[in-house]
Amino acid sequence: MRALKLTAWKTEPELVEVPDPVPGPGEVVVRIGGSGACHSDLHLMHDFEPGALPWNPPFTLGHENAGWVHALGQGVRGLEEGQPVAVYGPWGCGTCEHCALGIETYCEKPAEAPVPGGGGGLGLDGGMADYLLVPSQRLVLPLPEGLDPVVAAPLTDAGLTPYHAIRRSWPKLTPTATAVVIGVGGLGHMAVQILKATTSARVIAVDTRPEALKLAESFGADLALISGKDTAAEIRKATPNGRGADAVFDFVGADATLAIAGAAARMLGDVTVVGIAGGSLPVTFNSPAYEVSVQSTYWGSRPELAEVLDLAARGLLVPEVTTFPLEEAVTAYRRLAAGELTGRAVIVPTGLQGKGA
Amino acid sequence: MRALKLTAWKTEPELVEVPDPVPGPGEVVVRIGGSGACHSDLHLMHDFEPGALPWNPPFTLGHENAGWVHALGQGVRGLEEGQPVAVYGPWGCGTCEHCALGIETYCEKPAEAPVPGGGGGLGLDGGMADYLLVPSQRLVLPLPEGLDPVVAAPLTDAGLTPYHAIRRSWPKLTPTATAVVIGVGGLGHMAVQILKATTSARVIAVDTRPEALKLAESFGADLALISGKDTAAEIRKATPNGRGADAVFDFVGADATLAIAGAAARMLGDVTVVGIAGGSLPVTFNSPAYEVSVQSTYWGSRPELAEVLDLAARGLLVPEVTTFPLEEAVTAYRRLAAGELTGRAVIVPTGLQGKGA
Amino acid sequence: MRALKLTAWKTEPELVEVPDPVPGPGEVVVRIGGSGACHSDLHLMHDFEPGALPWNPPFTLGHENAGWVHALGQGVRGLEEGQPVAVYGPWGCGTCEHCALGIETYCEKPAEAPVPGGGGGLGLDGGMADYLLVPSQRLVLPLPEGLDPVVAAPLTDAGLTPYHAIRRSWPKLTPTATAVVIGVGGLGHMAVQILKATTSARVIAVDTRPEALKLAESFGADLALISGKDTAAEIRKATPNGRGADAVFDFVGADATLAIAGAAARMLGDVTVVGIAGGSLPVTFNSPAYEVSVQSTYWGSRPELAEVLDLAARGLLVPEVTTFPLEEAVTAYRRLAAGELTGRAVIVPTGLQGKGA
Amino acid sequence: MRALKLTAWKTEPELVEVPDPVPGPGEVVVRIGGSGACHSDLHLMHDFEPGALPWNPPFTLGHENAGWVHALGQGVRGLEEGQPVAVYGPWGCGTCEHCALGIETYCEKPAEAPVPGGGGGLGLDGGMADYLLVPSQRLVLPLPEGLDPVVAAPLTDAGLTPYHAIRRSWPKLTPTATAVVIGVGGLGHMAVQILKATTSARVIAVDTRPEALKLAESFGADLALISGKDTAAEIRKATPNGRGADAVFDFVGADATLAIAGAAARMLGDVTVVGIAGGSLPVTFNSPAYEVSVQSTYWGSRPELAEVLDLAARGLLVPEVTTFPLEEAVTAYRRLAAGELTGRAVIVPTGLQGKGA
Repeated sequence: MRALKLTAWKTEPELVEVPDPVPGPGEVVVRIGGSGACHSDLHLMHDFEPGALPWNPPFTLGHENAGWVHALGQGVRGLEEGQPVAVYGPWGCGTCEHCALGIETYCEKPAEAPVPGGGGGLGLDGGMADYLLVPSQRLVLPLPEGLDPVVAAPLTDAGLTPYHAIRRSWPKLTPTATAVVIGVGGLGHMAVQILKATTSARVIAVDTRPEALKLAESFGADLALISGKDTAAEIRKATPNGRGADAVFDFVGADATLAIAGAAARMLGDVTVVGIAGGSLPVTFNSPAYEVSVQSTYWGSRPELAEVLDLAARGLLVPEVTTFPLEEAVTAYRRLAAGELTGRAVIVPTGLQGKGA
Repeated sequence: MRALKLTAWKTEPELVEVPDPVPGPGEVVVRIGGSGACHSDLHLMHDFEPGALPWNPPFTLGHENAGWVHALGQGVRGLEEGQPVAVYGPWGCGTCEHCALGIETYCEKPAEAPVPGGGGGLGLDGGMADYLLVPSQRLVLPLPEGLDPVVAAPLTDAGLTPYHAIRRSWPKLTPTATAVVIGVGGLGHMAVQILKATTSARVIAVDTRPEALKLAESFGADLALISGKDTAAEIRKATPNGRGADAVFDFVGADATLAIAGAAARMLGDVTVVGIAGGSLPVTFNSPAYEVSVQSTYWGSRPELAEVLDLAARGLLVPEVTTFPLEEAVTAYRRLAAGELTGRAVIVPTGLQGKGA
Repeated sequence: MRALKLTAWKTEPELVEVPDPVPGPGEVVVRIGGSGACHSDLHLMHDFEPGALPWNPPFTLGHENAGWVHALGQGVRGLEEGQPVAVYGPWGCGTCEHCALGIETYCEKPAEAPVPGGGGGLGLDGGMADYLLVPSQRLVLPLPEGLDPVVAAPLTDAGLTPYHAIRRSWPKLTPTATAVVIGVGGLGHMAVQILKATTSARVIAVDTRPEALKLAESFGADLALISGKDTAAEIRKATPNGRGADAVFDFVGADATLAIAGAAARMLGDVTVVGIAGGSLPVTFNSPAYEVSVQSTYWGSRPELAEVLDLAARGLLVPEVTTFPLEEAVTAYRRLAAGELTGRAVIVPTGLQGKGA
Repeated sequence: MRALKLTAWKTEPELVEVPDPVPGPGEVVVRIGGSGACHSDLHLMHDFEPGALPWNPPFTLGHENAGWVHALGQGVRGLEEGQPVAVYGPWGCGTCEHCALGIETYCEKPAEAPVPGGGGGLGLDGGMADYLLVPSQRLVLPLPEGLDPVVAAPLTDAGLTPYHAIRRSWPKLTPTATAVVIGVGGLGHMAVQILKATTSARVIAVDTRPEALKLAESFGADLALISGKDTAAEIRKATPNGRGADAVFDFVGADATLAIAGAAARMLGDVTVVGIAGGSLPVTFNSPAYEVSVQSTYWGSRPELAEVLDLAARGLLVPEVTTFPLEEAVTAYRRLAAGELTGRAVIVPTGLQGKGA
């Protein structure tokens, strides 16, 4: 079969011919319907030195995957060949306290995982290929009726990550609450939709780009603010008594955006750092406001992925998607790097193309 | 009656004679049985400039108060003269979203409170006097049977604050969890007891002083560590797979202790900044570990105070107390400033003295 | 002023002239904009014997009230004359463990409440009058901008009750979940809207009347079922693997509807008895399914009322309302008893009429 | 090896010689250190007709098992031969919404489980043998240091069941709360210990047998009541204002005990039916008190089992155990049926005997 291999650090991947995978006991082979091209893949191609990560090339790229069950290993029950499925991306040990609850991103026994702190497309062969070998049945989730694998693929990461971040703030997102989304890009535009679908909180979108704010408004954002030095004050002004936002989700994660997040948050609120721009928010006794919970977040859990897929199957979450055949994957990454793409780029090895959503 | 008045910023308080308070409608006058002397009072005497706070002297000191109902204003039901009571210290507006749940420390309509961001002993007359005027019945809590007002007084702050901090981490403090108390002083020695009484988590105490660690062990701490450069590593080593602590309570709040807290916390754990040493813990995408929730905390809620008093009445929380008559209050503060006191200093206007606990 | 007095058990109320109320300390007089006529008032007129309740006539009817602040008693802060407000209906002691959290329906010191287990219109004078005396500022909630008191009035009961019931099931109402509303009447039609606004669960409506199901569908119900012997099976069939509904809200409360609720509930789900038809659901080790939590519910809390009003002000909750002038209140009750009304009857003493919603 | 086989319904089991089990891919063979004899096994021997359960004899008894890893199937990571382990008893499909969170008792795809609604000793070969074949690594939990398999075995059921029941009530079991344990037998005596170890609630024990109450008191019960017609009133009397118990755990489950539970529960409290005596508690709008959550419970989850084992390893949970060699297993069951045993009977195939606790 064909596979887009990263063969060394600091190189671009190459489309090569490799043997078809064969499932061992408990394993599943998925025929790929869609594999999302993620910004983090650009880091894999360009930024890492040997030794920086616990694993090394060669491996096939693609950690956002969906398709159809192709072959089942011995002992797999409850899945059928041809069944449409999504692949849960972070592959942990499966049995530590966190994995036992399906939060495999936070696996505490990485030495017992298929690869430490990674998965398919992250140290092991991923989904930018005709087929993907998944090491355990538990990582394969049936697609709800009506959900196209091309749409499902990016949801496994770009949908799951904001969903997980928002879900932790649900108890605070009551009808009188306000949620803020900073950065209405690949993840942020999903965050606005998820907030509207799953809570009755007011949603404020913040971005530097007017077209991003228009997108946010089209998904139901109650207020859209061009980011600037007065943003935190404007957010506060939009809340009762200037009390601030109950939850702020920062999909940028730079010093400047985190400063807005910290200054805009209400006492007892949440600030969640989702973006990887490398910024920092200092927490002291006095700042942010009392009991604002500041924390990072990374990807999401298996049960949450099922919930994200369900939202999308019912039309409550619609990712923006642009598709490319497998032969044009390198082109897709180049255009992604150049900022020329709107919406998530999804590689479609089957040649079946079109706007996924 | 006698009252220990702070008459100007940057002075020591004076014992003066003032008129007895008379309760208006809904108000309660409490005869003071004990009024705790808090480190924060030393700041009030020595550190503030006019304009730094939303209120100014003169006012009577004492924001940790308990005693007996002396007189009831019109319309007060459910309290009787002579009944032993504790006074909830932070006096908010009583009706905003936070006050409606009894979290008056986080009042969002301070302009409608008796004094903005304060209470008795903090802008209004406090309990270092024969009697205290409390502006609403809701701020007066009956003492459970067997609890001496001298013991109850410091619990309203030095007991309530760690209780509130710990309570937010209860869901994470399962039998396999580890809690860390940094700083086993006035609040920290209560924290160890509260953790042992209300959870089955392992408790690790950290301090620079061997005698503080001995105290922690006497209250059941499972491990006691002298604070140093390897403390975070030692905490991790004491947890399964070196995963770290599920909740860290920093009662110091300096840069160095917060650095330990951040480095020792487990993924998905809690770091709570209780101490006011002015330190800072930077939160980034990568640090502390994923989804460690970092937040401050300040005092506690009315319902929680009832729970703290109950713990103490049943012997599950025993504050260390040293008593002084009202005439020696200034001496008590001087000894407190000099670090000569063990346990909380409690002023006893009734002259009834002795070791409270 | 005019007031619709119930003067004795087993009589109809009369419109009489009474003195205008004057607020004592801490009290508030509200000029009534709307006062809802509730089925439970019919019980008060027709069904009770002396001694059956802890209070007796005479009192003015009307326990669902909204209007404008008319006069403030001594010591009331944060409210202004002319301000539109809703009145929280159940008046508890204000200080017991439940009242301290605003759940005054479940007051545990009824002897210290204004009237035991009641409030305005329930033992004390209610809002079917030109003015209403409210015994404490805490029971008066500012209306959010744009919300008409005529609409707000029925929300204080017919909106708050389903909201409270649904809120307890929020953690179970994830995107993959199913909620069932049995009985799409005065409360049930609000329940459908509240479920759609605050969760992403699928909503199944059940009723015996096709027009009620049409109403449910107009509010977004995903499935509407005529009630019958196969209803529980049909609900199960509409859920993945026939697993059943995550939360069932029974607004009827008869044996037959509770049997459907119990049989339709998923393991670990919720069944909430809201309706007062007097039915019973037996819970055994084997039935309903494992860990289905079966419980009643009654009215709601003060913080929740603020949330309900906010939903309505933003158009996310639209009660069906028919208005009557105060002179026609008895007629309104007669038509209510005869089942001739669609939507809640709201009495408008100001003469300002029209369709409220 | 030797195995205690149930060969047909309505017979006693026989000790027979069978081939040693060999682990397939992902499977684990455990050398048995202890296998608990449970009352429910007596039902298996005596009460069931063919077709009543989804599985049939022959199979080896024993669903409470612990021992040492004997052999590992292909692909098992993170376990070592000789390592002491406990076996999680309910074996679900492993991937449905419930199994994904480790609540395999409530598996929703039983057709995909190793046996529908069962496990080792329940339809499949259990642990009353020299070795036990466990179908997946996820069902094998490492024992914490210092915990004897003989003690661990009964904890997997008789410890896990009350732990799971109590854990759901944790949020209600604050320091001012009261918990009631009805029936201080094999599970109830663990419940008292678990409540004392994990909460600061007052504990009231109820039983018909004075010696059971003595046992409860030795484990720290605050009050012990002989069961009778006034028990609910006595429980209420022991709570503030007679408000009732915040959580009642009924380990009997008869009509009479459930009536006590319902009548003793506080508004907003919990009643949990654990015992299988076949009783029923009717829930209506008026009874039990408002918002008492009435539900059953069955066994517990994998993560909870790890917590139970940890409590026991630290001496916070000490089961009463009587040991028997494998040859005397039938005798043990006969004595269990005759009510002659105190504490759990544990079969020890290794011949290693003694009082486990």
